[in-house]
Parts: sequence; structure tokens; C-alpha cells
Amino acid sequence: MSAGPERFCAAYRLRADASQVQARARALALEQSIEMPLEAVAQPFVRDHIVAQVVSIEPVDGPAGAGLFDVKLSFATRTTGLEAGQLLNMLFGNCSLQPDVELLGFEPSDELLRALPGPRFGLEGVRRALGLDARPARALTCTALKPQGLSPQQLGELAGTFARAGIDVIKDDHGIADQDYAPFAARVAAVQRAIGRAAAERGDAGRTLYAPTLSGGPRRLADQLRVVREEGVGAVLICPMLSGVPTLVELVRAEAAVPILAHPAFAGNVRIDPALLLGRLFRLFGADATIFPNFGGRFCYDRDTCRAIARFAREPLGGVPAVLPVPAGGMSIERVDEMIREFGTDVMLLIGGNLLSAVCAAGDSVLARATAFVERVRRAGSLAQANQPACTAPAP
Amino acid sequence: MSAGPERFCAAYRLRADASQVQARARALALEQSIEMPLEAVAQPFVRDHIVAQVVSIEPVDGPAGAGLFDVKLSFATRTTGLEAGQLLNMLFGNCSLQPDVELLGFEPSDELLRALPGPRFGLEGVRRALGLDARPARALTCTALKPQGLSPQQLGELAGTFARAGIDVIKDDHGIADQDYAPFAARVAAVQRAIGRAAAERGDAGRTLYAPTLSGGPRRLADQLRVVREEGVGAVLICPMLSGVPTLVELVRAEAAVPILAHPAFAGNVRIDPALLLGRLFRLFGADATIFPNFGGRFCYDRDTCRAIARFAREPLGGVPAVLPVPAGGMSIERVDEMIREFGTDVMLLIGGNLLSAVCAAGDSVLARATAFVERVRRAGSLAQANQPACTAPAP
Repeated sequence: MSAGPERFCAAYRLRADASQVQARARALALEQSIEMPLEAVAQPFVRDHIVAQVVSIEPVDGPAGAGLFDVKLSFATRTTGLEAGQLLNMLFGNCSLQPDVELLGFEPSDELLRALPGPRFGLEGVRRALGLDARPARALTCTALKPQGLSPQQLGELAGTFARAGIDVIKDDHGIADQDYAPFAARVAAVQRAIGRAAAERGDAGRTLYAPTLSGGPRRLADQLRVVREEGVGAVLICPMLSGVPTLVELVRAEAAVPILAHPAFAGNVRIDPALLLGRLFRLFGADATIFPNFGGRFCYDRDTCRAIARFAREPLGGVPAVLPVPAGGMSIERVDEMIREFGTDVMLLIGGNLLSAVCAAGDSVLARATAFVERVRRAGSLAQANQPACTAPAP
Repeated sequence: MSAGPERFCAAYRLRADASQVQARARALALEQSIEMPLEAVAQPFVRDHIVAQVVSIEPVDGPAGAGLFDVKLSFATRTTGLEAGQLLNMLFGNCSLQPDVELLGFEPSDELLRALPGPRFGLEGVRRALGLDARPARALTCTALKPQGLSPQQLGELAGTFARAGIDVIKDDHGIADQDYAPFAARVAAVQRAIGRAAAERGDAGRTLYAPTLSGGPRRLADQLRVVREEGVGAVLICPMLSGVPTLVELVRAEAAVPILAHPAFAGNVRIDPALLLGRLFRLFGADATIFPNFGGRFCYDRDTCRAIARFAREPLGGVPAVLPVPAGGMSIERVDEMIREFGTDVMLLIGGNLLSAVCAAGDSVLARATAFVERVRRAGSLAQANQPACTAPAP
């Protein structure tokens, strides 16, 4: 799929009768661009430059492909206004309401690549922020503060424990927003200070970044970003599909001077390929790391989907830096080796509840479990490094 | 479904084996609240006050209901932080990633009803803004400026034509954002002034409100709202699922002093009942009118869904004003009578391309078609009024 400097391409899967698919594809192109019949358009400029065009229609192979067609459309880049929300609107605004359409692909034009912010840090920048840019690389470790309902002090104590264990990134559970039992400012201060105390105890054994959940409207987000700056917080977490992509791009990406973790909450109202959304689009919109529900956990994505997310996060894409894939969603320490074999070491492994629930299951302390997680990743990292050359893409 | 003052209820449809459904429902309650196993929660406060609870599990009746269960959960209102984005997160954040779950219902608690802004104008307020609050009521008329690609001057000329025809509300096509061929400020000024000139020609025959599409991040939205105020624009259009619900609530609802039309673009990545999302939730988030794809048009909703959207938009809901249902999406003048029979007169009928495409089809001018639309609605309004008592709900 190629796109000239002024147009970009998108790929859709359509369910249609073979006899109807040409008309259906043309209708889709109109729906997603001028939203009216072509014969009612009097202006040559609109017909020649604004209407989306059908590039190709191919039947989907295989027995599961019956009645399905892959349709490529090309769009004028100008129709996006070079703005992320309007880009989503052109790609999947109205046709999200048509159940016979899925969005499978998007190839940005050069203009869009320049206009969309992309990650400020990316995979390598997050490593540098952690002081881990020296090779050999190892996978990064991440855990979540939970459950919501804990007080700032309780969250701080838990964060201190994780930091003493040497976890790289400690994020809020995405459900920890700005509730009265742990208001953002009080919580972030308590957690960041606890991490600071743990770092002082550990000396220069490593850094830990805290990523509090940003939530709410733009004013609230601006207040939260001020707290992040004032407390010297090292990262942030946001749910782009809840906060709104334009807010991520224009406010959080522009103003947060720290790495951004994107969380997939509310992103699964599907019919957009998850790899495209979580891997490519979130990367273009400014995420430095993209959390996704790994296969074999509490969620539904299969192995191929998870591989595709990691590929989209790290593959070459114009000058846009690669970002960290973050497999998550019911992962356990026991799966560390397997995940590193699957995704390589340019990855951040997120294990949340398993570090806590093991308290009951095995009688371990949280500190012991978190330390075990960190050590397992370090060991596995060396192994992976020995067995395979430095790679930024998953094994084929 | 009842909800006490500190808790609210949500209804989900789960696909599960009968032997597993109790465990699946409990897992859903945990996923949507504390996101960890209950046995790992040490704090009584969290167990007693924060964890979502399974209220009921009922098999779905009928042959299509095999393997489906309706599950009601109750949530602590405090977990929402009384903020709209976090409310969506509690309702459908993570479980949007689980394809066996649909969100069918949401009953706000009193606290949420007070905290969510609701419409500033509502159905009656829009009528007042149009000078149409005297009874008997008639349905309102709405059309769309299109296609994108027209210049501000061309859009202004079209708007002037619609205004001379007596259309009540002229909205931008939702794809007309802030593109270089019609930048927001230039376009809005041109259109508003054209409408003003038409109003002067018509004398006091009626008012026309213009609803330009707001798009982009918070800074851009704030700039656009300033243009709206400076030009005396009478309404705005926003796509909440593209702009982000928290941005709608905290910025647009708070700062726009004019009626807000909500557009469903990007809202159809389903598994949330459309009536709940477009009817009830958009109303709670501050929309004064909710556009939806009517049955028999270019989109997929069936008649029952459309009736349910209208019901959710207008039914009593605490002290929240009723809002206008706006059936749209490939409607035609020929369907005016039928739509008014279906939805009553507390409705705004949106006919876009049909006013333009008819130019070719029938040789009519746009002015003639728009005038025919307005007159048809006026005639039908009287008929409906004669045939049925003033109603704010569709016929059963």
C-alpha cells in the first residue's frame, strides 16, 4: 500500500455480495469523505481532490474469507486538517456505525508523519530515562499500584516496596483516577516521595519511574501535569480512548516532558484492528509505550495479534521512533521467559495483580515477589541476548 | 434496576456457559473495579466499599438468548471520582477488551445525576433559542452544509439558501473540521454572516441557528469557542467519541453558551447499546440534541434501537432536561410524515444530501427543496398535533 505526498491509504475489510462489492466500496469512499452522492457535487475541486478513491478490491482468501473483501481507499491528506481526531474521523468516523466494515490498515502520508507528534522518548528514550541505555539490553519491568480504594499513604508504601525491589516503572492502575479516597495531587506526592526514599536507600542501583494515571478534561489534565512537574514524576499513563485522542496529542504529548504510557481501556469496542490502533496509531499520537492485553491472560487477543502490536510499535515508520510494547493483562512471573522469547528484550513486561495475589497463594511478601520478577527479567535478558542478536522486532 | 445514593448500577450481557456464569460475572465485577483477585485485597474498606458487586444474573429469554445472560453490577459512585471519563472507564474500560461482554444499561446514582452536567438547553431550550416555544409544537428542521472541500464563501452561499428556506438549524457536515480549504474562523464567519443576511431578508419569519463542527484538542477548541462567541453563532456540533467525553463535559459544555449537537461519529465501535450511549449518556454529558442514524437509511440501526434512542433522550431522568432526538443518515423529504408519526413533534429532522442530490434528480433548486422540507414539516406538525396529544415520547 503506497501513498503519495498528498494522499494516504487505509485498508478496510467489507462484508458484501460479490456482485455488490464495487458499489459498496464506492459508497464507503463517499461516506468517509464527502458524505453525499457524487452526482450532486458540482465543484471539480471536490470531485478531483477531496473525494476518497477506491484503490483496490480483493476477495479475502481461504474458507473464512467467503463474502469478505479487502478494500483499499486513498484519502486526500488535506481532509484531515493534519489533526489526529479528524484523521480518525476520516478513517472510521461514520463507518464505525456500519457493521459490515472493519478498519485494518492505515499508511500515513509524509505530511501526516510530519504533522502527528509521534513519541517524544520512544523505546530508547525510556531506556535512557531509566539509565539503562548501555547494552546489553534487557527487558524492562513494570507493575501497577492497586487496588483503587487505597489511601495515598498506602499507595506510597506499596510503591516504595516495588521501588526497593528494583522495578523500572510503577504505574497507577488505570482505574486510579482522581477519587476522593486518593486525590491526584496527594497520591502522586505520596507515591513519588516514597519512590524517592527507596531510591536513596538503594543508592545508584537503578532508577524507578512512576507513571500516575491522568484523567478528566483539559483543565484537570493541565492541573495534573503541573503536579507531575512539581513532584518530579518520571512518566504518565493515559487512556487515549477515554481522554480523547486530540487531547492526548495537543495537550499531554505537547506538555508532558516525560514518557507517556498508553492504556487500552475503552479501546476494545472493536472493528479497528487492535494492532493498528494500539501499535501504530497510539505511537503516532505520541505514546512512548503501549500497554496491550497479552495472549493467554484475562483478555481475548491471540498470539498473532499481540505479535502484530509489537511489530507496529517497533518497526521502521518514517522517522518516528520505535516505542515499547507492554504485554499485560493477567501476566505472571512464571511467564517472563516465554514473553521475552516471544517479544525480545525491547519490551516492558507489566505484571500487576500476580505480585500481590501471590501473597496469599505462596506466603511470599510483595517485596520478595517483586524482587523475583526483577531478577527473572535480568536473568532472562542475558539469556535472550546470548541466544539472539540485538533485535528490535519479534522473531518471525 | 435501582441504585442507592452511593452506588449506581450497570447492566451487561455476557456470553457464558451456564455453569460458568456466576464466576464470569464475579470476574467482570472485579475487572471493572479493583482489577485484581479479591483474595489479595487486605483492606476491609476496599472489599466493602470499592469492589463492584453482582446484583443479579438472569438468562436471556428466547431462542436467540442461548448462552447469554443479563448481569447487573452495582458500583460505588466514589469510584467514578464524579467525572465522566472515569465513569465510562468504570462502565466499560477494560471489559471493552473482552468480546463476551456488552454494556446494555446504566442507572446513574443521585450523586452522578448532580455531578454530570446534563444539557444546558435541552429540547425546550433549543425551541426557545429558535423562538418556537409557543405551542402547538412542530418538529424542528435541520440540514448539513456539505461537501467538505467547499470554500468559506461557497459554504456561506449554501447556508444563506437554507436560511432563506426557513431551516431551523444548519450544521456543518461533521467532516468539515478545520481544513485549509475552509479554516474554522473564516468559514464560521462567512456562514454566520450569510445566515444573518438571510434572516434580515426574511424579517421576523423565524430564526436559524448555525452549528459549526468543533474539532481538535483543547486549545484549538477554546479558540473555536471564542470564534463562536465573537460571531454570535447559535449552536455547535461535536463528536464526543472523537473529541473525548471529558473534553465535551469540562470544556465544551462548560464554555459553550449555545446548544450542543452531539454527532455519533466513531461511536459505532459497538458493544455498548447505542440507545444507552447516544440517548442517555450523551444527554448526561451535556448534549442538547443527539444525532443518530435512523432506520431505513445508510446505516444499520433497526426501528427498536431508534425508538430506544428517542426514549432515552426524552424520558424523565432525575431533573435532567429532555434533549432532542435527531434522526438522520440518508433521510429524505418523502420520509418526513413517517418520521413525525414515529417520533412525534419533539424531534429535529436532519436531511442533508437529499436536499442537494435532488438538484440533479428532479431539476429542483436547492432553495426549492429546502423550502419543501420546511413546509412538509410544518404541515405534518399540525397533523400530528391534531391526531395525538402533546407527547414527549414516541408512540408505543
